[in-house]
Amino acid sequence: MNSQPAIGTEEGLWDRTLRRVRRVWPLGTRGALRDAVDPRLSQDDAARIRRQIDACLEVRGGEVSGRARAAELGETYLVLNADGRRRFLEILARDYDVDSTVIDRAVQARHDAADTESRRRAEAQLRELLQAPRVKLLAQFNALEAGVKFLVDLRAELIPLARQDAELKALDRDVHRLLASWFDVGFLELKRITWDTPASLLEKLTEYEAVHAIRSWHDLKNRLGDDRRCYAYFHPHMPDEPLIFVEVALVNGMAGNIHELLDESAPVGDPERADTAIFYSISNCQAGLAGVSFGNFLIKRVVSDLTRELPNLKTFATLSPIPGLRAWLDEQLASASLGLEETEAQTLLELSGESSMPDSFAKLLNRRGLTRDEELGKVLQPLLMRLAARYLLESGRDGRARDRVAHFHLSNGARVERLNWAGDLSRKGIQQSAGIMVNYLYKVSDIEKNHEAYSEEGRITASPQVRKTARG
Amino acid sequence: MNSQPAIGTEEGLWDRTLRRVRRVWPLGTRGALRDAVDPRLSQDDAARIRRQIDACLEVRGGEVSGRARAAELGETYLVLNADGRRRFLEILARDYDVDSTVIDRAVQARHDAADTESRRRAEAQLRELLQAPRVKLLAQFNALEAGVKFLVDLRAELIPLARQDAELKALDRDVHRLLASWFDVGFLELKRITWDTPASLLEKLTEYEAVHAIRSWHDLKNRLGDDRRCYAYFHPHMPDEPLIFVEVALVNGMAGNIHELLDESAPVGDPERADTAIFYSISNCQAGLAGVSFGNFLIKRVVSDLTRELPNLKTFATLSPIPGLRAWLDEQLASASLGLEETEAQTLLELSGESSMPDSFAKLLNRRGLTRDEELGKVLQPLLMRLAARYLLESGRDGRARDRVAHFHLSNGARVERLNWAGDLSRKGIQQSAGIMVNYLYKVSDIEKNHEAYSEEGRITASPQVRKTARG
Amino acid sequence: MNSQPAIGTEEGLWDRTLRRVRRVWPLGTRGALRDAVDPRLSQDDAARIRRQIDACLEVRGGEVSGRARAAELGETYLVLNADGRRRFLEILARDYDVDSTVIDRAVQARHDAADTESRRRAEAQLRELLQAPRVKLLAQFNALEAGVKFLVDLRAELIPLARQDAELKALDRDVHRLLASWFDVGFLELKRITWDTPASLLEKLTEYEAVHAIRSWHDLKNRLGDDRRCYAYFHPHMPDEPLIFVEVALVNGMAGNIHELLDESAPVGDPERADTAIFYSISNCQAGLAGVSFGNFLIKRVVSDLTRELPNLKTFATLSPIPGLRAWLDEQLASASLGLEETEAQTLLELSGESSMPDSFAKLLNRRGLTRDEELGKVLQPLLMRLAARYLLESGRDGRARDRVAHFHLSNGARVERLNWAGDLSRKGIQQSAGIMVNYLYKVSDIEKNHEAYSEEGRITASPQVRKTARG
Amino acid sequence: MNSQPAIGTEEGLWDRTLRRVRRVWPLGTRGALRDAVDPRLSQDDAARIRRQIDACLEVRGGEVSGRARAAELGETYLVLNADGRRRFLEILARDYDVDSTVIDRAVQARHDAADTESRRRAEAQLRELLQAPRVKLLAQFNALEAGVKFLVDLRAELIPLARQDAELKALDRDVHRLLASWFDVGFLELKRITWDTPASLLEKLTEYEAVHAIRSWHDLKNRLGDDRRCYAYFHPHMPDEPLIFVEVALVNGMAGNIHELLDESAPVGDPERADTAIFYSISNCQAGLAGVSFGNFLIKRVVSDLTRELPNLKTFATLSPIPGLRAWLDEQLASASLGLEETEAQTLLELSGESSMPDSFAKLLNRRGLTRDEELGKVLQPLLMRLAARYLLESGRDGRARDRVAHFHLSNGARVERLNWAGDLSRKGIQQSAGIMVNYLYKVSDIEKNHEAYSEEGRITASPQVRKTARG
Repeated sequence: MNSQPAIGTEEGLWDRTLRRVRRVWPLGTRGALRDAVDPRLSQDDAARIRRQIDACLEVRGGEVSGRARAAELGETYLVLNADGRRRFLEILARDYDVDSTVIDRAVQARHDAADTESRRRAEAQLRELLQAPRVKLLAQFNALEAGVKFLVDLRAELIPLARQDAELKALDRDVHRLLASWFDVGFLELKRITWDTPASLLEKLTEYEAVHAIRSWHDLKNRLGDDRRCYAYFHPHMPDEPLIFVEVALVNGMAGNIHELLDESAPVGDPERADTAIFYSISNCQAGLAGVSFGNFLIKRVVSDLTRELPNLKTFATLSPIPGLRAWLDEQLASASLGLEETEAQTLLELSGESSMPDSFAKLLNRRGLTRDEELGKVLQPLLMRLAARYLLESGRDGRARDRVAHFHLSNGARVERLNWAGDLSRKGIQQSAGIMVNYLYKVSDIEKNHEAYSEEGRITASPQVRKTARG
Repeated sequence: MNSQPAIGTEEGLWDRTLRRVRRVWPLGTRGALRDAVDPRLSQDDAARIRRQIDACLEVRGGEVSGRARAAELGETYLVLNADGRRRFLEILARDYDVDSTVIDRAVQARHDAADTESRRRAEAQLRELLQAPRVKLLAQFNALEAGVKFLVDLRAELIPLARQDAELKALDRDVHRLLASWFDVGFLELKRITWDTPASLLEKLTEYEAVHAIRSWHDLKNRLGDDRRCYAYFHPHMPDEPLIFVEVALVNGMAGNIHELLDESAPVGDPERADTAIFYSISNCQAGLAGVSFGNFLIKRVVSDLTRELPNLKTFATLSPIPGLRAWLDEQLASASLGLEETEAQTLLELSGESSMPDSFAKLLNRRGLTRDEELGKVLQPLLMRLAARYLLESGRDGRARDRVAHFHLSNGARVERLNWAGDLSRKGIQQSAGIMVNYLYKVSDIEKNHEAYSEEGRITASPQVRKTARG
Repeated sequence: MNSQPAIGTEEGLWDRTLRRVRRVWPLGTRGALRDAVDPRLSQDDAARIRRQIDACLEVRGGEVSGRARAAELGETYLVLNADGRRRFLEILARDYDVDSTVIDRAVQARHDAADTESRRRAEAQLRELLQAPRVKLLAQFNALEAGVKFLVDLRAELIPLARQDAELKALDRDVHRLLASWFDVGFLELKRITWDTPASLLEKLTEYEAVHAIRSWHDLKNRLGDDRRCYAYFHPHMPDEPLIFVEVALVNGMAGNIHELLDESAPVGDPERADTAIFYSISNCQAGLAGVSFGNFLIKRVVSDLTRELPNLKTFATLSPIPGLRAWLDEQLASASLGLEETEAQTLLELSGESSMPDSFAKLLNRRGLTRDEELGKVLQPLLMRLAARYLLESGRDGRARDRVAHFHLSNGARVERLNWAGDLSRKGIQQSAGIMVNYLYKVSDIEKNHEAYSEEGRITASPQVRKTARG
Repeated sequence: MNSQPAIGTEEGLWDRTLRRVRRVWPLGTRGALRDAVDPRLSQDDAARIRRQIDACLEVRGGEVSGRARAAELGETYLVLNADGRRRFLEILARDYDVDSTVIDRAVQARHDAADTESRRRAEAQLRELLQAPRVKLLAQFNALEAGVKFLVDLRAELIPLARQDAELKALDRDVHRLLASWFDVGFLELKRITWDTPASLLEKLTEYEAVHAIRSWHDLKNRLGDDRRCYAYFHPHMPDEPLIFVEVALVNGMAGNIHELLDESAPVGDPERADTAIFYSISNCQAGLAGVSFGNFLIKRVVSDLTRELPNLKTFATLSPIPGLRAWLDEQLASASLGLEETEAQTLLELSGESSMPDSFAKLLNRRGLTRDEELGKVLQPLLMRLAARYLLESGRDGRARDRVAHFHLSNGARVERLNWAGDLSRKGIQQSAGIMVNYLYKVSDIEKNHEAYSEEGRITASPQVRKTARG
């Protein structure tokens, strides 16, 4: 997941963000509060914020006025600096949580309910009371121009603050629940991204790409060529902001090397003749939507759309990194549990000229070692491929795959299909995945079965070839 | 509120509705269930429906498969006839409500919670458990083509069934809550309707108009002329379906007669020179959104938009019926509490040739009496205007205005501005409102004050003129 | 061809048309001329108009100013009444034609040209001089808002005036040539018209329909149902104005009766199962485009589009009136050249009780005779069908079909396929076509051959069945 | 004017261009010709091309078939290589020109015409005959997908070939005339270009920019910032291809330095507070539209639009190069007519260490000289500014300004407002304009007057300041 720019930095905020606030509501003294507060939110300001929140929640002056006040609160948030925003969030977290005392009474009422009707009434009341007042307030920020994006960005700022504060954490859970209902996949729209897409949106892809960084506009154009596809999910109230996007290459045969896919000088293939769609990059775009997942739906919608558009496509697979591999190798080395054969260990020590295995590994596993040194390659390749296969196929104690990318695709019903030596020799590729890439295969007829096997029994499905590699 | 066509009648359903179901999800055996059920939903079918619901709720085969199953359930509903649909709804109502036993336990846990953290955990669990499983299911119907409209129409069918069935009533409350969150006014779009709007949408206005029936396309075109405005709220997922719309006439001075406004042969005025906007018809369009209110927001948004577009406009008022007037008059007559002066009563008896007051009133209050008979008019006009003013200005015992239209506008902060004798001489106008119409004035600077006076203290604001009329 | 409303009538013109004139050009004293002229165009005004035209043609003050002046002239035309407009057109016709004297000189120069280069130069000059100054002026009216429509409407007004005036006729030829280049079919867009089309555009179809009048919005909606298609050509600069449109019914088997096609209560067929497309109405919409033909292209584009959309369609044919039949019959009767057999003539006289054949025919050929009277039908049907077939199959002396509709379709390469007794029993159908309708068949593989046979040799292609009917 | 990529190179043409040819016409054996020809157009092919052209011009098989054949000819052109295309164009040039012999006869007929009517008929015939058959053919290429662009690109290829061939030159004049009528400014649309414009279109701006090259996407984004405006003209049948575009900076006071305007790190100004709009780059985009001018209209439309959008703008001016300055200086030096004072000449010789003035100038006028060397600057600035002012203010013998950019703006009614020393120190700026830039002022009220003075009398309008500089 990529971190994205926050709602707005202090500088230039008055000049830019506020200009586009929607004048939706005809009533009230819009702007008075916003214009008066100190960016750091003084004690006095805090008191005024509370009064404004109270007026909103009591719907003073009618519903429309209530909305106008809520919108003004939202705008006020935008003019605060980092300290001011934290104070604002703390007010919500501490003063507008559910009311424990009245819940006590409602719980008692439910407890005492004698018949169905009074039970139902007590439950309805409990349900209402368990909705924190701040949730009602936050939901009304949708009256702001770009109000949905506003709340997403507010949460992006809240998440790091919530890590060390239980009350802010509880607030975050409320915001998460609200956003999860707004961003239900049934409300989202899938759109294809092409070179005819507005430049401002393409620029965002460049910012949000989290797997293989887009190096230039030329690189980007290459990823949107005739033999490529790019799709993103959008929310109707955030039409300029992708939520998640996937990049697909249409090729012949399973691709195993990311550099070939990203080679800007490679000839453009004919999509009508391709037999395989390779999903080589999936990036979440909105930090504020952490924990609201669409990736699963995205892949399957794209499989479905591509099948219809290009009936020649027979195989759908990813080309993925194994981001946890090196960390796991280091850990195993430390505990001497790699299970190397004696001769292997001996060779590694000799080649590296080091005396301990961890040092030896660290020295050998660099770009030079993996690509240029033929002799070293002969030793390292079978060894690392075997270890990578083991890493991917053995679940951890919690019954989940160790690798987070593996877990994502296995949960979605894919299987581990093929390991590719020297598939990603970028610095990041070597540092995280020892240069190895993996294909996860999405075979439509097996997806439910694979999913059930994995999520019910923790059983990881893999091709015979990978199983064999794991056995060495 | 207008009743609108239900999701589909039995006839032609297979031919029309199903054709447009979206193939969103690539997996599963879509259509098998739908194609197999009997339209009346047999016992066996009911069992299969339950199994399908259970599979959805357990998310068997993964989230995407779960959605596909939910969508199929939705489609299945569409092929049922009235009996089948009632059975389907009863299954949801009886078998997928909240689970009383587990709530008991959760209530106990909350009761026993010793510290903040365990209290929070217990509350989160309670909140989760108080969400009925059927709500989770229904929410997923948004994966259907036109899924939002689907749920709106389902509720339109549910409402009449729920009147005599407490369990269906509880289901209706769940659906209402779900729709209220989907249709929050912050998510809606205001659009102007003109003669350039697609005919298919204009045709719907004709169906939905609930105040002054649209008699012909010519009548409709006249209501969309240069000196008129028509605005409607739309949901982004129901782009072809208005939720509520308002018709406005741009005139000079406060209009008091609906026939003049609807006269198709009247010359078209110049909107730039108009000083008054008359809201002469507001209609809700979706029976399934009963209890989800937008009228309040609609009026004020339109006031705001018109103010910007046409700065010459100084006065914003309605021209409204008094739909409860005649019923109240009859009631008062029966209890002899009209407070007529002796001479008035005597004249009425003479004019009608009847011996009792109720008979006399019933005879005189018809179209002929109100329009043609000059002598009668002289007697009736002051009398009925006085009674109408009293009816509007005196709240009932619950502190609310007696008339539902009056209650709506007073809640929104309008005031009773002017009564108009012979303002609506249509059959309906005479039968309900004794031919009288009323202007409610929306004065922006007084709206909050009026609202507070009415909703806090039950105080009805009115012009001095109307007060004077009430005093006789 | 339908006559359509002219550019604007005197009444309300100042209020409406002028409001929307585009302020394209930043310079000059726009509006001064227009505001000053008398609607009848006085002598003084005429002089000012000439000065303005001269300034335009000399491009005084630069090209942009020239355009602004031309636009102003166009606007000025709009405020004139019928007399004023005639005078305006006469100024163009008499004072801004080609200059005979300078052409004389240029003709001489071409005559004297000794070498290729000087010949070319002389020809270029001649070409330039043969372009009348008024054409340069009229072409510039495209700078008006809706400038293309402006010229089309100007010509609609010019055509009737030009009938008795040779100079206006010459002007009309100039305008026609200009419009023919603007409206070349390569610049037009074909659009499908449906019930989702803006009401304002659908209303125009109702006005423009020239074959089978649209009786109501319900009739119109029926013609846009699922088993119908309606297509129109548009010019990119007249997006709200159809140029020509065709109505198509998707049916099984060749339709022979227009009442069945227009029956609003008939069930809606499934377009995917239809095997025949019946073109039952083609209407030109713009009187000002008389002589600029698109009908030919329209039919073939629609055949092409429908073939792609609905591969089940195998047959493309019209259901057409025979508008010249009755007039021809009367003429033949007058010259006693109908070639009736003695017994036929005798029966007709008896049935009618008249003593002469023309009287007899006139009496029998009415709605009653053609529909209700069985005995009469038995006599009339074979007789009239034989005569209709002869009328359609025998060309006139000019080698063209006698009937104008027949000529149109035969020129386009269709063949006379089938005659339909009692196919159109409307008043117009009986008065023009003796109630008979004809199908012209468009068989793609024969179109070129049929066209060549007809236009080169005047040979009319027909089905064996129709040939047989003609022989009697 | 920028040269742009031709219609298509040989490589990849079959794969790409042809894929998108529109299947407009349902008839005929489309593609047969195109698929058969040799890319170099053999003798046999040439004969077949001629037969196809003849069939088109005779409209064999009807109008629709004729169009289909013309379209096929167009497609055939696309598959030819450079040699083949030249041959194709030569066929049009030599075999389908006007027919001299029949023109002879028509000229004679016009000569002999005795009355108005026969004169008119003769003129109509001459007009028809003076239209070369190839023009009728080329006009029909609009039936191709992107047919308008096709002809524009064909002319872009024709222009260089026509330079040394009188017959191709005559063909070019025909194509030019056709395009000039299609691209009349009244048919064009002005659109604003922003960062939200599709990337594919923005990429074209980068290609077409002819004044100050766009160095990167970041540079481009900067030119589309809040304090910038970019507008382009488009033809409705070439929606993805700008015809001409202008870049405008919104600043305070007259800008004199292009580097400041293009500085990507400069802060973004507030457009609402700017008082001056600087047109700093105007580029024609279509080589095939050489000689069809829109620049004049573009500037004034943008002035008009900006005035409406931003009423604060008071001054509209360009910041322009003086591209002919250096060449003129060199010429003057060669003829010793620079009119330097003795001391100036002496100083220059000393500073440069050269013995002749031309050598001296050449040495001093380089980037270093103009920027860094203070002493040299003191000498050069007054000298060069005086010479530049003289160059701009004195017309040539033909009564036109010597500088082509000056001529363009003076024709449009601007005046020479200010010279800016060191306004453009790029390599090109120094090589062409000696680093000097000039502002041409567009004062709306003076434009017509300035234009007339310049085009009627060759009088160049300039500010007093520039006049003074010229006097030295």
